[in-house]
Parts: sequence; C-alpha cells; structure tokens
Amino acid sequence: MTLTPEQQAEIDQIRSQSNPTLRAVSEGMERHLYTAYPVLDHGFVRVIDYMGDDAAICQAARVSYGKGTKSVQNDEGLIRYLMRHWHSTPFEMCEIKLHVKLPVFVARQWIRHRTANVNEYSARYSILDREFYIPAPEHIAAQSVVNNQGRGDILTGDEAARVLEILKADSARAYDNYQSLISQDGQQGLARELARMNLPTNIYTQWYWKVDLHNLLHFLRLRADAHAQYEIRVYADEICKIVADWVPFAYAAFEDYRMGGATLSKTALDCVRRMIKGENVTQENSGMSKGEWREFSQLLD
Amino acid sequence: MTLTPEQQAEIDQIRSQSNPTLRAVSEGMERHLYTAYPVLDHGFVRVIDYMGDDAAICQAARVSYGKGTKSVQNDEGLIRYLMRHWHSTPFEMCEIKLHVKLPVFVARQWIRHRTANVNEYSARYSILDREFYIPAPEHIAAQSVVNNQGRGDILTGDEAARVLEILKADSARAYDNYQSLISQDGQQGLARELARMNLPTNIYTQWYWKVDLHNLLHFLRLRADAHAQYEIRVYADEICKIVADWVPFAYAAFEDYRMGGATLSKTALDCVRRMIKGENVTQENSGMSKGEWREFSQLLD
Amino acid sequence: MTLTPEQQAEIDQIRSQSNPTLRAVSEGMERHLYTAYPVLDHGFVRVIDYMGDDAAICQAARVSYGKGTKSVQNDEGLIRYLMRHWHSTPFEMCEIKLHVKLPVFVARQWIRHRTANVNEYSARYSILDREFYIPAPEHIAAQSVVNNQGRGDILTGDEAARVLEILKADSARAYDNYQSLISQDGQQGLARELARMNLPTNIYTQWYWKVDLHNLLHFLRLRADAHAQYEIRVYADEICKIVADWVPFAYAAFEDYRMGGATLSKTALDCVRRMIKGENVTQENSGMSKGEWREFSQLLD
Amino acid sequence: MTLTPEQQAEIDQIRSQSNPTLRAVSEGMERHLYTAYPVLDHGFVRVIDYMGDDAAICQAARVSYGKGTKSVQNDEGLIRYLMRHWHSTPFEMCEIKLHVKLPVFVARQWIRHRTANVNEYSARYSILDREFYIPAPEHIAAQSVVNNQGRGDILTGDEAARVLEILKADSARAYDNYQSLISQDGQQGLARELARMNLPTNIYTQWYWKVDLHNLLHFLRLRADAHAQYEIRVYADEICKIVADWVPFAYAAFEDYRMGGATLSKTALDCVRRMIKGENVTQENSGMSKGEWREFSQLLD
Repeated sequence: MTLTPEQQAEIDQIRSQSNPTLRAVSEGMERHLYTAYPVLDHGFVRVIDYMGDDAAICQAARVSYGKGTKSVQNDEGLIRYLMRHWHSTPFEMCEIKLHVKLPVFVARQWIRHRTANVNEYSARYSILDREFYIPAPEHIAAQSVVNNQGRGDILTGDEAARVLEILKADSARAYDNYQSLISQDGQQGLARELARMNLPTNIYTQWYWKVDLHNLLHFLRLRADAHAQYEIRVYADEICKIVADWVPFAYAAFEDYRMGGATLSKTALDCVRRMIKGENVTQENSGMSKGEWREFSQLLD
Repeated sequence: MTLTPEQQAEIDQIRSQSNPTLRAVSEGMERHLYTAYPVLDHGFVRVIDYMGDDAAICQAARVSYGKGTKSVQNDEGLIRYLMRHWHSTPFEMCEIKLHVKLPVFVARQWIRHRTANVNEYSARYSILDREFYIPAPEHIAAQSVVNNQGRGDILTGDEAARVLEILKADSARAYDNYQSLISQDGQQGLARELARMNLPTNIYTQWYWKVDLHNLLHFLRLRADAHAQYEIRVYADEICKIVADWVPFAYAAFEDYRMGGATLSKTALDCVRRMIKGENVTQENSGMSKGEWREFSQLLD
Repeated sequence: MTLTPEQQAEIDQIRSQSNPTLRAVSEGMERHLYTAYPVLDHGFVRVIDYMGDDAAICQAARVSYGKGTKSVQNDEGLIRYLMRHWHSTPFEMCEIKLHVKLPVFVARQWIRHRTANVNEYSARYSILDREFYIPAPEHIAAQSVVNNQGRGDILTGDEAARVLEILKADSARAYDNYQSLISQDGQQGLARELARMNLPTNIYTQWYWKVDLHNLLHFLRLRADAHAQYEIRVYADEICKIVADWVPFAYAAFEDYRMGGATLSKTALDCVRRMIKGENVTQENSGMSKGEWREFSQLLD
Repeated sequence: MTLTPEQQAEIDQIRSQSNPTLRAVSEGMERHLYTAYPVLDHGFVRVIDYMGDDAAICQAARVSYGKGTKSVQNDEGLIRYLMRHWHSTPFEMCEIKLHVKLPVFVARQWIRHRTANVNEYSARYSILDREFYIPAPEHIAAQSVVNNQGRGDILTGDEAARVLEILKADSARAYDNYQSLISQDGQQGLARELARMNLPTNIYTQWYWKVDLHNLLHFLRLRADAHAQYEIRVYADEICKIVADWVPFAYAAFEDYRMGGATLSKTALDCVRRMIKGENVTQENSGMSKGEWREFSQLLD
C-alpha cells in the first residue's frame, strides 16, 4: 500500500493535535492511533479510536468480585486469572475502532464475526477504486492434497506466471467494463448498485470495524491461527501487534492461554495421565479415532 | 431457476414423509416446507424448518403478562397489541430456517443482519457452480439522478444490450479462468481459496439462514421496502408470502403497523395537528428542512 | 445518595488528572466524567469512559456512503438524516461506560437489554451493604385501575405511612438476618451465595454497564418513556442529560424523531389523510379497534 | 415441586395430541415434550418446543463444506470433528424452548447469558405466588474458607436449624406483607410494581427461555460445572439429560470435548511434554504461579 501525499499529510496533521482528557489513556496505543499499517498489496489497518486499558479490565473485575479480588493483588496476576478461568465480561469493557482496507473475499470471512459494529463503503452509493489484490509470487500455492480448505506447495515458474496473468488480466478487464457501465458521457450510465456486480472479489473495500476486546481476542484466536487463510491472517497478525501495545498484560495472557494453548478432550487428558505414568499409549489403545490421534500426537511433539 | 430432476425428486420424497409430533404445527407452513420458490434467474428460497405459530407468540406473552393479558381475549387482538406497542420478545419465540440461493452481492447486504445463524457454502472447500445473475432486460436501469443509491430509468435498445453483453461475457470468462486455475489435469491446480477471488459478485452462493420472527420482520421491513435494491427485495417479497401463511395474525399486524405505517417526528406530528385544525402548513412554517418536508408531503398524499 | 468523604475525594482526585490524547474528545462529556449524579435515595449514575462524539457518527457514515454524503453538507443535517431513515450503524460507533448503583428490581428490568456489556457486583463473592430503596412519599401510588402495569393515585396519610413502615421494617429485619446468617463470630457463617437470597429486591446493587449509542438510545426511548416504571425512568432521565452534552446533534435528533415522535399504522395514516381533507373520522368508520382509536386520538390532541 | 391436578391434566392432554409434520423429528425429544421435571423444592424445567436434531447439524455443515465433508462419512464422526475444531455455526441450527420455574436469585445468574430469547412472568402486571426456595438441610453450607465464591462444610444441628428458621420466617413475613400491601379490600392497594420489591430473591419466578444448541451447550458448560452454584447447577443437570436424548451425538461430543476436557496454556502444554519425556517438573521449574500449578496438578491426578 502506498498512501497518497494527501492521506499521509492528513494522518500527520491529526497525529499532531493532542487534547487533554480525563479518561484512561493507554500510552502504547496512543503511539499507533491513525497510523496506517500496510497489509497485502493495497490494504491497511489503522486504529481510529479506543476505550480502556489493562487497568480498565481490572477495575471492572473488581466491581464484580468486590473484596473477593483482594487476594489477587496485582493487575497482571488478576488478568491472568480472568483469562485462565474464562471470565470474559471484564475484557468486554475495552473497545477498539479500526479502519481497515481489505479485499472483498477477506471481508466476507471477517463479517461472520457478528458481535461487532461495521460501517462499510457502499458501492451502491459510490464508485469503487481500481485496486485489486494480486498475490505476491510466494503466496501463490496449489490446493492442499491433505486439507480440503488449505494450501499446499507454492506454485512456481510458468504455472505461477499463468495464475498471475489471469488474475491481473481479469481484474483489469472487469474494472474497465465497470467504468464503461457506469460512464455517463453522452449516454445513461448503469446504476452503480448493478454495475458493481461485474467486479471480482479481489477488489478492495474498506470499513470501520468496532469491537470489544473479548470478541477481538476471539477473532484473533481464529484468524491469527495457522489454519486461517493467509490473506486474513496477515490482518490478524498486524492487529495482534497493536493489541500487544494497547493492553500488554491481557495480550500476554491471551498468548499463553489461547494462542499457544490447546483444549484436550476427556479422552486425551486420560491418555496424558497414562503417558506421564510411563504407559505406552498408542492410537489403538487411546480411545481416539485416527484423526484425533494424529492431532493429539502433533500437539505433544 | 430450474431444479434438476434429482433435486425435484428429493424434495418430493422428503415432502412425502410425514411424522407425528407433539409440537405446535402451523398448517399454513407445512404446505411450504422444502419447496424451492424461484427468485431471480438461478436463485431460490425454501423453508427447511420452523418453530412456533401465532399461538406460540400469545403463549409467551401470557407467561409475561399473566392475568394482565386476560383483558385482551383473543389471539389476534393480543398480537396486534404487542406489535403496536413494540413488545418484541414474544415474536422472538418463533423461529424459521431457510435455505437460500442468492448472488454474492445480495448475500453481502443480507449478512449485515447480525442476529441470525448462518452456514454458507464455502468456496475454500468446494468448487462453485457456473451460475451467474444476469438481470432481466426490464431490470437494467440507469443510475438515479435524484437518489444516490437508487435506480432511474430503464435502459433500452443498444444501451441495454451492451450491459447484458458485458455482464455475460465477463462472467463467462471469469468462470472459464476459475476452472482453468483450479484444474488439476497434468498440473497443480491453484488453491480454491485463492482461485475464487477471480469470480465476480453476481455468482451464486447458498446458505442456511435461521432467524427468529422478530428479527425476520425487521429484515423484511428494510428489505421488502421500496428503497431496497430490487435484487434483495424479490427475496424479501417471497419470504413475506411464506410468513403470511405461517403466522397469519402476526403478518397482518406487521403489514398494518410496520410495512404500511410510518414514524412521524415530533415536528411532523405537530404539523399534522395543525393541518387537521385547518391551518395552512407550508415548508416555511413547518419547522422542517426541505428534505423532511418533501418526505412528509409524500406520506400524506 | 450521599457520597462518603473518601469517595468524593477519590472522584475529585481522578478529575484533577488530565492526560493528553490523540483521540476525539467531547468537551461536553469531559465535564461529566466520574461525577456521581444521585438517583433515588441511594443510587447514582456516573460516566467512567466514552468513545466518540457527533463527528465520529458522521465520519462512519461518510465511510459508508462515500461521495454520496456530500449532498448533506453539515454534520447536524447528516445526523438528522441518519436518524430519520433508521440508519443505525453510524450511531453504533460511539460507546459509553457507566457505573450505576441501583435497586435489584430495577436491575432486573435493565438487564433485559441484551446488547450491552455488564460487570455486576457479586453477592456470591462479597457482602452487600445495608442500603435499601424506600420510595419518597410522593411516589407511593396505588395500582392503576386502567393500566395493568401502571400506577394510579398517590397514597396518602395512614395508607402511605403503613406502606413505608412495612418496607422499612422488612428491609431492616431481612438485613439483620442476612448479617446474622453470614456472621462468623464463634460459629460457621452461611455461604454468602445462600445468605443473599434472604434479601428483598429493593436492596441496592451496582454495575459497570457499557453500551453503544444506538442501543443506548433504544434503551432511553423505552425507559425514559412515560409508561416506564418511575424507578427506572429516573435513571434514564439522568442519562438523557449526559447524552445531550456528549452528542448534542444526535440527542436533538433523537428527541425529535424518537422521544417526541410516534409510529402510525397504515390505517392511522389513512385516517390522518382523511381528516386533513376535512372528513369527519370516528372510531366507527376508522377501521381501528376502540383501544387503537383511543391511543390515536390522544396522539392528535 | 408438586403439580396441581389441573396442571397435570393439561400436560397429559397436550401430550395426547399428536399432529403430522414434515419437519425433522427427534424421537428422543418427543418423549420429553411438555413434561415438567422437578428441580429444587418448587421449580421445574420442561421443553415447550424444539427445532432440529443431530442430522440437522450435519445437514448445515454439509452446506458449508460441500464436497469437502465427504471424507467424514458418518454423522457421528462429523459432529465430533465439528465440536473438536470449534465449528460452532452448525450447532446454532438447532433450537430449544424451555419453560422454567426458578428462584429469582438463580434467574439473575441465568439471564447473564445474553444470546437467548426470554419472556418472564411480570410482577408489574401480575401477582406472584407464595412459593419460596428453602434449601434442603443437606445443601445448607458454610462459606468456603478457600474459595471466595464457594461453599464449605455442611451446617448441621442448631446452626442449620437457625438458618432454616430465618429463611422460612422472613419469606413468610415478606409474603404476608406483600399481600397486605396490594390488598384492595376497603382500601387502595399499593401498585404491584412497587409491592414486589418487598419480596426476597428466593421467591420463584418463571419464564420461557429459547436458545440455540451452541449457546445452550456454552450455558451448560459453565452452569453444570462443579464450580457453579448448586441451585443453578441442578437446572443445568436436568437440561443435560434432555439434550442427551435430543441430540445424542452432539451431547456425547460435548461431554468428551467440553465437560470432561480442559484447556492447557502454552506453559502447561510445555510441562506436559517434559513430563512425558520423564523430566521431573515442579512448580519452581514449571514457569507457572502457585495457583496455576495447583490447578494443573489437580488436572493430571
């Protein structure tokens, strides 16, 4: 992504205007405000506003648990306790508002997270820009042969070139025709709400997306995961960095208990207990199916 | 939409299998179950399951209001009372599950209604069919000159032909290339999650969509409205017919209080009172802006 | 409500600490932050945090509608347009976090608004204070004879005295016994999660309640309404004053289109049209039931 | 709980009326419909309606994953796969509507689960019955000395008798006074919306509660857990039995992956790997706090 000089000037200008507030301020987050972090070839993520910080999580927890929280003296320990025991409501007390520019096919996955507020650029009202996601060569991969929804080997040489050529040519032609459809020079232009349907889903859209911290972490757990599609994962990765500066204790607990953690079934827990006692547990005597056993084995490697 | 003989046979078969249940049954809805009602050129709506009927709405209201509801003796009167006074929770006690086939650009509007459950066909896992929405000639319209998001005059002759030609040709080429990208004959095919981005948003997708009656009526109020885009309105219209048979009292109240009704501002109500008293109220002395006055005048015509 | 000197000192102290921020700041809201506004005899409402202002609503709307919003030049006009046409998502871009102290029976109504984040004081963990809502004499009213859920005449004299006596005595006895149940002097105290059940619902609880502006306005429309129970309405009224200073354009539009407005059914609209033309419309020829006609007539008075 | 002969007759009567339906029918669930299962001393749970079965979960999953689900041939395996990988949306395709009678302090915990539809008996409209929860002697326990929100030893002898006496006497007096407040014999009765505040939270209320299977399982995981308060856990336990008959595959997967499973942090997983390799891992070299280590050790015992 390259910002126009005008856009960069606008960001610089708004970042130069500080106002006093009585609200809780996250120093780490203030450094990120408004700055557009590039993602993919034309996309970005930037923070437009936020509410709360690590202390706000603890403050809300202490309202709930009153004197009961005194035993956990410090904020970090309390936040780890809350995360470990799935006490989700204190994390809902923080809120973030992002401005995201992203391809439509990524937006379609993203919007499935329903507990959020969204204002998307409307192609019924306005004309979309000529910006399409064209994967970098190292991300053009074949269909996985082991995972129905994943990618396998990277395509190279002629095969990769052919893919790029098709994507570029079809995007260009679709946009040329879109422009031609809505053109109003000497003729009536097609309604924008109709013309947009000619555009492929690698075109970029943008939106404001507002979400509380609990639901954001849930989003990140799923979308920063290795199984998520690369094109949404890079957005999640960028947001992870921002959250780490915004609420450092909460993010560290999230990394330990959610991103790096795993849920074991009753059967798997039982196998772990047997293995620790020195028993030789195999798929056959584990009580698990082959698929479960494979996932379980990978986890313990 | 044309169903394949296999699909029609499957629907006929499932409609021939009746089972006894102790649950509330809506006779009107049973007649619709599983039948696919065509919408647009390849789409459809069909009911897969439902819960509750008009009596279920009243039953829930009577739990809430106890003896307080005795004064409203009959179900129809009670349902009209609930609708009139925005008592929404009893309507949430009914539920419907639809199977919908629809263009992606329509799905993108539809999904903005967040209080619903959705399972959509995944183009990460599976290959999309060659089915694109191509508007019928009478729905190819120019951009409205008065409404930024609306349609104006119908395009005709060469202009209409040009639009159709572009949409058809671009859809065909995009799908040919999609197939070529994922093809695995003698070469590695591109991952499906990438190849799909070459497809324009007039391609069809499908989903199961489950929603409670209160949220469904909210959806219908917005999407069966004259200002909604034609391509989603036809789905809403088809669903309206089904709801009218499912919960006839609730639907009639909805038509009177929501679809056919209107909200007047404090200022507008005041104007109405003055006009009834015979006063000559004009935009200038109304307290309304020109835009508001125009809408108000249209309402009273 | 009387704050302890310690509480007041804490509020004064936190209000004296201003920090620079790059975020949008609402001057009107900064004046309210942390201050506890008394409600009922021991309750209060105070703002703990907020996100956004009138400009944030417009900013989000302009992302959606792009150049389409240029025709509505100013923020006030745009906000009125959004409110009038039920464009709710831009209002969701503002958020508020309140600290509320309120009787349990009020909390039970309040919590029915589901789209909000809540952390409530837990009587499983902690011991409740001896604070009960005892209505002021002017709010002790008889059951309405016309409205199953409303109040009628104010009780006076011996009747009012009797009510106050019962409420005070039962609250005092229940709390004495609660203390005695959990007491741990020389005996085992009953678990707090059990002892709390002895307390009547006029005891005070407190919570942090976070909600977006759209859902807050929906709450206010229902709870600041004349039909809402007095004891929740006074909280809504106090919040209305805060919102009026926070987002003055949005609040003014809300007052005109929601609080002061009304929804007319198709039948009612038709009657209005006939009345404006000079026709003598009566309940008999209106197409409305007696109840509807009564409400309609009151509206036009 | 004892049903009146009239109530039992009504249930018998409705259970004798079977109607044909084309919808999916769960034989296991049909056996439960309408029957009131006693919980606590006056409460009950009963199913009023349901939508879907195990096959409906698979049907929705197969829409999403298309041909991708063919590799998981049978419904049971597919449901286990979905549960293991947190694919929650197919479980949202089933819905249940319960009629529950429960003490107010239990209702206050229950209502915190926001993704559900509720119609509660209103004490603004109607008069509450004289029914209070009085714990059985074996559930009267002291405050836990290790857990701020839990119960410790069972109280016995005089201490238990004292507790029972207080709860019974205060409930009786509160109800007598409630009746006296609303009484209308020869005097004006206090408005019901005010009189109700004199009642303690062990009084029973009732509601219709409708929820999808995914959110129901989340509720059961938290409320059928050993750390949940006994008085809500017994409701969850009773619902578990019903769900096991309704969707046997989903319930078995839930028991294995959720109820009997556990989430390990990154640190804990690392310790498990070290322990399986024969290393002697102690709290000191584990990287965990004392609290975390204690929970971890209990899990592996």
